Amino acid sequence: MNANSDRYVVGVDFGTLSGRALVVRVSDGAEVGTAVHEYAHRVIEDRLPTGARLAPDWALQSPGDWREVLRTAVPKAVAAAGISPEQVIGLGTDFTACTILPATAEGVPLCEIFPDRPHAWPKLWKHHAAQPHADRINAVAARRAEAWLPRYGGKISSEWAFAKALQLLEEDPEIYDRAERWIEAADWIVWQLTGVETRNVCTAGYKAIHQDGRYPSDDFLAELNPAFAGFPAKLGRELAPLGGLAGRLTAEAAGWTKLPEGIAISVGNVDAHVTAAAADAVRPGQMVAIMGTSTCHVMPSDSLAEVPGMCGVVRDGIVPGLWGYEAGQSAVGDIFAWFVENAVPGSYEREAGRRGLTVHEYLTELAAAQRVGQHGLVALDWLGGNRSVLVDHDLSGVVVGQTLATRPEDTYRALIEATAFGARTIVETFEASGVPVEEFVAAGGLIRNRFLMQVYADVLRRPISVIGSEQGCALGSAIHAAVAAGAYPDVTAAAAAMGKRAEAAYLPDPGRADVYDRLYAEYRRLHDHFADGAMLHGLRALRNEASMSTSEEDA
Amino acid sequence: MNANSDRYVVGVDFGTLSGRALVVRVSDGAEVGTAVHEYAHRVIEDRLPTGARLAPDWALQSPGDWREVLRTAVPKAVAAAGISPEQVIGLGTDFTACTILPATAEGVPLCEIFPDRPHAWPKLWKHHAAQPHADRINAVAARRAEAWLPRYGGKISSEWAFAKALQLLEEDPEIYDRAERWIEAADWIVWQLTGVETRNVCTAGYKAIHQDGRYPSDDFLAELNPAFAGFPAKLGRELAPLGGLAGRLTAEAAGWTKLPEGIAISVGNVDAHVTAAAADAVRPGQMVAIMGTSTCHVMPSDSLAEVPGMCGVVRDGIVPGLWGYEAGQSAVGDIFAWFVENAVPGSYEREAGRRGLTVHEYLTELAAAQRVGQHGLVALDWLGGNRSVLVDHDLSGVVVGQTLATRPEDTYRALIEATAFGARTIVETFEASGVPVEEFVAAGGLIRNRFLMQVYADVLRRPISVIGSEQGCALGSAIHAAVAAGAYPDVTAAAAAMGKRAEAAYLPDPGRADVYDRLYAEYRRLHDHFADGAMLHGLRALRNEASMSTSEEDA
Repeated sequence: MNANSDRYVVGVDFGTLSGRALVVRVSDGAEVGTAVHEYAHRVIEDRLPTGARLAPDWALQSPGDWREVLRTAVPKAVAAAGISPEQVIGLGTDFTACTILPATAEGVPLCEIFPDRPHAWPKLWKHHAAQPHADRINAVAARRAEAWLPRYGGKISSEWAFAKALQLLEEDPEIYDRAERWIEAADWIVWQLTGVETRNVCTAGYKAIHQDGRYPSDDFLAELNPAFAGFPAKLGRELAPLGGLAGRLTAEAAGWTKLPEGIAISVGNVDAHVTAAAADAVRPGQMVAIMGTSTCHVMPSDSLAEVPGMCGVVRDGIVPGLWGYEAGQSAVGDIFAWFVENAVPGSYEREAGRRGLTVHEYLTELAAAQRVGQHGLVALDWLGGNRSVLVDHDLSGVVVGQTLATRPEDTYRALIEATAFGARTIVETFEASGVPVEEFVAAGGLIRNRFLMQVYADVLRRPISVIGSEQGCALGSAIHAAVAAGAYPDVTAAAAAMGKRAEAAYLPDPGRADVYDRLYAEYRRLHDHFADGAMLHGLRALRNEASMSTSEEDA
Repeated sequence: MNANSDRYVVGVDFGTLSGRALVVRVSDGAEVGTAVHEYAHRVIEDRLPTGARLAPDWALQSPGDWREVLRTAVPKAVAAAGISPEQVIGLGTDFTACTILPATAEGVPLCEIFPDRPHAWPKLWKHHAAQPHADRINAVAARRAEAWLPRYGGKISSEWAFAKALQLLEEDPEIYDRAERWIEAADWIVWQLTGVETRNVCTAGYKAIHQDGRYPSDDFLAELNPAFAGFPAKLGRELAPLGGLAGRLTAEAAGWTKLPEGIAISVGNVDAHVTAAAADAVRPGQMVAIMGTSTCHVMPSDSLAEVPGMCGVVRDGIVPGLWGYEAGQSAVGDIFAWFVENAVPGSYEREAGRRGLTVHEYLTELAAAQRVGQHGLVALDWLGGNRSVLVDHDLSGVVVGQTLATRPEDTYRALIEATAFGARTIVETFEASGVPVEEFVAAGGLIRNRFLMQVYADVLRRPISVIGSEQGCALGSAIHAAVAAGAYPDVTAAAAAMGKRAEAAYLPDPGRADVYDRLYAEYRRLHDHFADGAMLHGLRALRNEASMSTSEEDA
């Protein structure tokens, strides 16, 4: 592939607060230039740009911010790479999901026509105001035993396409009617680049309940709301494969990006899912854990099974030709950040500062000096609820074993271990369901913590491979662009050439793993005891009652 | 009692780190002068004054430090009172217990003969190195179904007289043989003052297993160790009643104290137990909770019952003529201190400092602004183990319900509530055992926290009375001195005249109490789930193994 050594692709990763462009050499995946653009509106949570106030749990974004990434970050990344734009043969994108918007038949976002109507704006993945709608969808689907429900671990999320659409219909039916298209931002951005609408198989499957060639039936939808029947007409009927050619860069988009008109644009995709290609981990049984504020697990497999508590299983959902499984841990890095913010004394902050360390680094150093089990603690990693394997966002955290000798580093280590036990629970659930996990590959920001990675290896009692890129999402998008441009026959071949993974970078220590087996047994006992939510839901209900009560006087 | 209005008594409270003398008017308990003397050797934990190294968990004191309290604090308090020593008609003392020492038949502490022998020194109450001996005592007593065992909630403590004596016998038999007397510091100090040996009924009952007129049998003791048979000969056969006249101040002791030779010296007593008199709470069903780093509950009753998990029930143990019950919570203020030391972020310290508040005051202010249940948490108050009602010092803490929104004041409040739930569990256990609790009286340092006291009233759903003195122990000793001096016919009458208590100072709020009932139900569920120690003992065993292991490499 000598021709590829002076050809490049651009990957663009649209995140929650910013977008990143990355220029990648086609022959070997070398990352030669990058640039980031912060969204001007970031997340729209309190008020619309026009001033209208939003209800609690809303989270919106502005399409204009996304276009700006194309206009600024892409040309900057190419300039930083020191290459000629003429050397770029394709561009690929990935997006947060389900981030979804109502648009006209021409792709015009309705918020650009009705800027003072909240429901006209794109709903960001973490818009959580559609929970009552998701609850109804789940209740009706369970009663009717809809065949697709087990493909989502028994529950669909309030974050997904149908729940958000049902909220739109019931709270602003006029905008619902005006929405000729209800489209993932992942597909909308590709439409902007190519001038043609496509729908990717990944978000259709994971977020829009597209299974076995169809969306949920009109009969089912009508039971939710008679006006909801026919909703799938606003979605795409034809789905495009990942790594496929969505279209070619239009003259207008060439003007934005300063890239050559006509280059290949790959089908839209999702941040977590493109990371599998970036780690060259798209073969059956390679589980990629994208470990950041939360953890998302994606894994291709050649067999279909019902795995309790998974987020979803979608045919071709990660790589064409295989079933793609997704699972998740609701909070991981968020838990450590919460701990540092709320539970670490000033004396530790000062000592870390004196030593030139972050508080995380200082706590990690202290925790790493302990032997397994020495802190006497076990914790449940449910401070953000539990996605897999319990699918219950109303669960909460538990810490067991404190004495008057317990120090902050003890609890910090116990929380790290709790997230590793959570990961082991997911891996064991997959394997018990007949879906073998052959390799555990770590990606995401937490891979920088070597101690944490070693804990995972010891707890999982298996080698941990680590992605070789700090921009896994953008690299994964670039790999998909290379396939769309025809530089490789398929995603697997492109990932093999351009993806980066250090195999077995962390090996389990048998002695530590033995002790962790005992601690994990306690974790599972605790997990099973609190799993039914009898106590945790009761405490949450009490909390919500107390928070809403206004008549009671304070103690 | 006009004669009493210009007569005074002195109470001397021997604490863990210092001794306090208090001059009290006989007629009404007015506290007219006080002075404190800090022990020069404080607690001897690492090395003897002669340099010999001590093993872990040892805690000793020096008798010379106690004598210094008589020499310095007593004359200073009298001077501060502005009265003539001739107006003092009696002196009473209370001590920590079981603080116990080996002595000659003349009362000479063996540490003054063998200063480089650790076992020759007085063992402070919190000397915990006799746990293996206590374990054996409990195991043998349970197997033999010794009749006295239920009087101690089913377990005697490693802190008490027989466990400490058995350790002495087995680790330094020569000192054991030389110890003609094995005597509570409470009685030894009275011997110093009067020149005659007495043994008080309180420590004999609560600490030396004296029940129904006898100590444990030689048959039982021989089963522990053949050489232990006959041990009670080192104790006192004749017991003296609380408030009784132990003897009269000797010329030598008059020289130390600058008080008149021949004044009445009352029988020795214990800090917690004299506090009942100071609070005028010596009638059946008045439970006095001395709330400090830990909480001790003492309550007279006219009926004998077996209360699970109590520390002990002793005839005449608090006030002559009634059964005296004692129960305890292993850690209370210690838990709040631990939290502030280990789990409160620098930002809170800075804000408290800016506002001129202690961190405790600042957290209390924030916690007090919440509604009951609003934090969504429930905790077990077992960070120092659980004395009553589980009698298991190897239990540990549990916190349930954290989310990413949990703030330090939430956990602080949950820990305060946990100790209140622990107190309610004790009260309910007494009542369920047929020992009614008529009034709950708070004493000790924590009564200064008004929010905490209100939480207790709401959780217990009963009024809380509060002692009216900040020197409850010394006042209680002074009251006993007044009885010994003949100013009152008995402790009850003296307490009525000289003790101070604000009745029903805190009233429960029915609305808050209703919500606390629901939270308490969760606490009890958690309590019962973890009570068997299956998980908590396992975690502690793992911790101890890991702490002792030296071969394993660190992660």
